[in-house]
Amino acid sequence: MHCRVCKSRAAVEVRRHNAAFCRDHFIDHVTRQVERTIHEFDMFTHDDRLVIGVSGGKDSLALWDILHRLGYRCEGVYLDLGIDVYSTESLDHIERFVKERDLILRVVDLGEEYGFTIPKAAETTRRSPCSACGLSKRYILNEQALKGGYDALVMGHNLDDEGATLFSNVLNWNVEYLARQKVVLPSSDGLVKKVKPLVRVAERETAAYAVLSGIEYEVEECPMVAGNTVNRMKEWMSLLEHRSPGVTQRFLGGFQKVNSFDEEERPTLLSCESCGRPTTGTTCAFCRLRARSSQS
Amino acid sequence: MHCRVCKSRAAVEVRRHNAAFCRDHFIDHVTRQVERTIHEFDMFTHDDRLVIGVSGGKDSLALWDILHRLGYRCEGVYLDLGIDVYSTESLDHIERFVKERDLILRVVDLGEEYGFTIPKAAETTRRSPCSACGLSKRYILNEQALKGGYDALVMGHNLDDEGATLFSNVLNWNVEYLARQKVVLPSSDGLVKKVKPLVRVAERETAAYAVLSGIEYEVEECPMVAGNTVNRMKEWMSLLEHRSPGVTQRFLGGFQKVNSFDEEERPTLLSCESCGRPTTGTTCAFCRLRARSSQS
Repeated sequence: MHCRVCKSRAAVEVRRHNAAFCRDHFIDHVTRQVERTIHEFDMFTHDDRLVIGVSGGKDSLALWDILHRLGYRCEGVYLDLGIDVYSTESLDHIERFVKERDLILRVVDLGEEYGFTIPKAAETTRRSPCSACGLSKRYILNEQALKGGYDALVMGHNLDDEGATLFSNVLNWNVEYLARQKVVLPSSDGLVKKVKPLVRVAERETAAYAVLSGIEYEVEECPMVAGNTVNRMKEWMSLLEHRSPGVTQRFLGGFQKVNSFDEEERPTLLSCESCGRPTTGTTCAFCRLRARSSQS
Repeated sequence: MHCRVCKSRAAVEVRRHNAAFCRDHFIDHVTRQVERTIHEFDMFTHDDRLVIGVSGGKDSLALWDILHRLGYRCEGVYLDLGIDVYSTESLDHIERFVKERDLILRVVDLGEEYGFTIPKAAETTRRSPCSACGLSKRYILNEQALKGGYDALVMGHNLDDEGATLFSNVLNWNVEYLARQKVVLPSSDGLVKKVKPLVRVAERETAAYAVLSGIEYEVEECPMVAGNTVNRMKEWMSLLEHRSPGVTQRFLGGFQKVNSFDEEERPTLLSCESCGRPTTGTTCAFCRLRARSSQS
């Protein structure tokens, strides 16, 4: 197989684009996909101050690298979830990455700043670890972005993540989640603007990008991930993608154009009695999780 | 495994209901599922005159048998598609079924009455056989139901058919099809009311019902079915169903409650220049198919 651009020996095949690329042109290709997404959805400009949530995995580090190379002003936040070696190793990768590029990173220690860790939360509440983790990340990254006065919070969700989440939301016809599953979520009272520039890049492509760019990332999956529903959906979507290359992107792209689940499905938001952030109840889910996880 | 009702040895397991049944109680169970669907969606009453499209396969014969046993007034229409031995064998099964129960059947010969067969249509047009067949069935069954003055046209689509079609429509975000994918399609100018009482019964259950009821049906798949997209989606949904029993029914049930794709998505209908039936263009798709297939 040969590179679509320079005809030299290809390093990566991208079946859904019916193309293959050498190392350099693959990096170009991924970069262009991200750039195109940023422009198409008017995500941000070079004047904006951005912050990205980084986990130490391939997606967020690849994306941060791309944004940095494209000249965007993007700082990072790492949330230490207290998951043993997994968390410390992840931070090591990020710190090396940041140092090499002279970037700004803020580390938030869930245990120190909020009084609980994800293993603790999973143990003391009936939530799955992934659900407690997702909730905590959403809350704390939003907090950090608001406090830092950033213009947008950048998320590293890739095509497979978004496809699987959409698929799961559709299977359950969760119209409230469907109404909020957007590539750009505009800011609203107490919620920072959120953008997902990686939605056109598949998971194996962010991995290939990281490897070919020499980015060292945490390759181990989180040890608490067993039974994660999105992962199961991803596996399942990948079977379909294997047989019909491009189906995930068409599914997601089509959804972005449909807009059948818009605004009216969004619930009225109140202020959390404890932290003041938006919630549909009296106390927000994060404050409830925190209260229950910090008790015992 | 034992029957949920009488504790005797079970003949069929229904995983998504976490149950198993002996022969008699399985037949009861399927019958009740159909009855419940008819009532829940106000499909028809014992006063209505119904007509069912029968193919000679398990679904339509099982459904006709259930409706007959429940005392509904239901006649049948068989459309001879001209697919060689497959069509003649199918008709044999139906004729035996009808004779045993003293039912009324009308046979429409596509070749004689409309001047073309499905193999001919597939050969002379760029449509796949399944697409030409589906289009012809929809058109002619509607014609027959209108001409006969029936109150509703009963379709034998089962849970897997509807799940796979929904899934395919969602993957492509075909909002026009989604708006029309209903368990009950009310009558409108030139279109008879259509109902699908089998949507709560899975494919293997209609097969089990037919076998346990001693209904002989055409077990061979249509020889022209290769590459059928709905079948591919069915295979794929069945993988998910196997791992999460009940997911197909929840997917379909949730969709029926959502109604996000309603009326506004429906195109304006005009009258076909050739036959006068509703169409979105000037000549309807069936008349175009017929014209092209009858020429050569």
